[in-house]
Amino acid sequence: MKKEVLEVQSEAIFRMGEFLRNEGFVELLPVIISPLTDPLNHSVYDAKIPYGNGYYSLTKSMIFHKQLALREYPKIFIFSPNVRLETEDKKHTGRHLIEFVQLDLEVKDATREDILDLVERLLVYTMQKLEEKFGAFIKSVNPNFHIPKTPFERVKYLEAKEKLGSDFELLLSKEKGDPFFLIDIPIEEREFYDRLSDDGKTLVDMDLIYPYGFGEGMSGGEREYELDRIIMRMKYKNMNLEDWKWYLEEVKKGIPKSAGCGIGIERFVRFVLNLPSVKDSRLFAKLPGEIAL
Amino acid sequence: MKKEVLEVQSEAIFRMGEFLRNEGFVELLPVIISPLTDPLNHSVYDAKIPYGNGYYSLTKSMIFHKQLALREYPKIFIFSPNVRLETEDKKHTGRHLIEFVQLDLEVKDATREDILDLVERLLVYTMQKLEEKFGAFIKSVNPNFHIPKTPFERVKYLEAKEKLGSDFELLLSKEKGDPFFLIDIPIEEREFYDRLSDDGKTLVDMDLIYPYGFGEGMSGGEREYELDRIIMRMKYKNMNLEDWKWYLEEVKKGIPKSAGCGIGIERFVRFVLNLPSVKDSRLFAKLPGEIAL
Repeated sequence: MKKEVLEVQSEAIFRMGEFLRNEGFVELLPVIISPLTDPLNHSVYDAKIPYGNGYYSLTKSMIFHKQLALREYPKIFIFSPNVRLETEDKKHTGRHLIEFVQLDLEVKDATREDILDLVERLLVYTMQKLEEKFGAFIKSVNPNFHIPKTPFERVKYLEAKEKLGSDFELLLSKEKGDPFFLIDIPIEEREFYDRLSDDGKTLVDMDLIYPYGFGEGMSGGEREYELDRIIMRMKYKNMNLEDWKWYLEEVKKGIPKSAGCGIGIERFVRFVLNLPSVKDSRLFAKLPGEIAL
Repeated sequence: MKKEVLEVQSEAIFRMGEFLRNEGFVELLPVIISPLTDPLNHSVYDAKIPYGNGYYSLTKSMIFHKQLALREYPKIFIFSPNVRLETEDKKHTGRHLIEFVQLDLEVKDATREDILDLVERLLVYTMQKLEEKFGAFIKSVNPNFHIPKTPFERVKYLEAKEKLGSDFELLLSKEKGDPFFLIDIPIEEREFYDRLSDDGKTLVDMDLIYPYGFGEGMSGGEREYELDRIIMRMKYKNMNLEDWKWYLEEVKKGIPKSAGCGIGIERFVRFVLNLPSVKDSRLFAKLPGEIAL
């Protein structure tokens, strides 16, 4: 691996953390094992570890821990290592690793628009800092590199799908020259915890899509925080409420209203450096379906 | 949890990373699952996850990954989340969590003395930055807080044990007013990878011991890197070489000479803030023997 890739990746996480601290965030330590983790909206192999009288699961995202942490502090982030034992068909997408790191952040009482604004400024700040320090290298490997203008374009999911068909996300990613947000994602496409909008069909959420075909690099949204709505959403997903007693007990005690997102670090570095695959953006990359160091 | 504890923990990791970057280090992303992890020198429950044709273990430390990463870059660090499924007898030590974060660092061609010097300066820098920002809070909870003088005292393990008996580490930790290094730890007390000194009985390694009874907060040393010596040390530990083929294959290809260490974040925060237990130094703390969020 080129030493500059490691330097860019290292600087990126430093500057992201610096930006968020300057915005009043605290960094939490990651949670790797918990009886409670993200159900995701696609199926991965289970990673459960028996211990004592129960078992621990590996963290697939810290979504619920973020909600609980907001009881203690109103703006939080974590460089959160996530293990998702993806199926082997995802081996050659260039976009999937079975362990990766996301910058997971959440803000009490925030709206989706607050998070879109924050993410735009975070990415621009980080790219500016990377350009200052590694501009020559970055441009040598990525002739398309430039600092995107804010605000990023907002594209409505259903409108884009109607216009361009089911491959719209990849088509738009290839066509655009700047990152953009895909918003108002339909309820059936996402987990139960993103907030349902008043139309009853789409969520108050978003993905960030990188240009030049690099695809999705961040997901987030406003969250459900009221017990009755959460139970309704779990039932819509045919989830067994008994499996979710840890979470539902905490919701009964009260969790804050919030919005937040998770930004994939390897995908961000891949985008900035125009790398063939996310596996080229870090050491010890593990592709779906393989056992690797 | 007091919001100031989260602020101090967040600032501590920021300043540690900043210090190391200024010293020419790059930060790597953590490895959570691998077929290869630290055997440790004490027994913990196994955390193995079947996947594809093999299995992954949870990272107990990134020692071997650090050695391999030095092929790519000469100074590296990771905020490495480690899972060690400790036995329940360690529940009430105030010093053990089953998941914790260590600042794991390694330097190509370094000596133990280089690392002792680095760690002293790292801790002093971080404590100074914490005092600047949170001095009033820190002194309100920790009347003993002060910036330690460098160099820290070096105490030889066998000499201290002879003088004070087998409880020497705790006795010294309670008696001292400043952090100190315990050096030259006997071969039977440590893993195979710390370098054996010419006396054939002790290792070129160290622990950092905090004062006021807080005990050990960092371990490290020079490392073995030559195949014949590594095999000798594995045999001394009665390790099954077949189980270590991943590692031995890499050693055959060549791993750099190095020294390094791992600094426990929760223990550092506990020391700075005079907290009753490491569980008070982070959110979602998990004690040995229990299933907790």
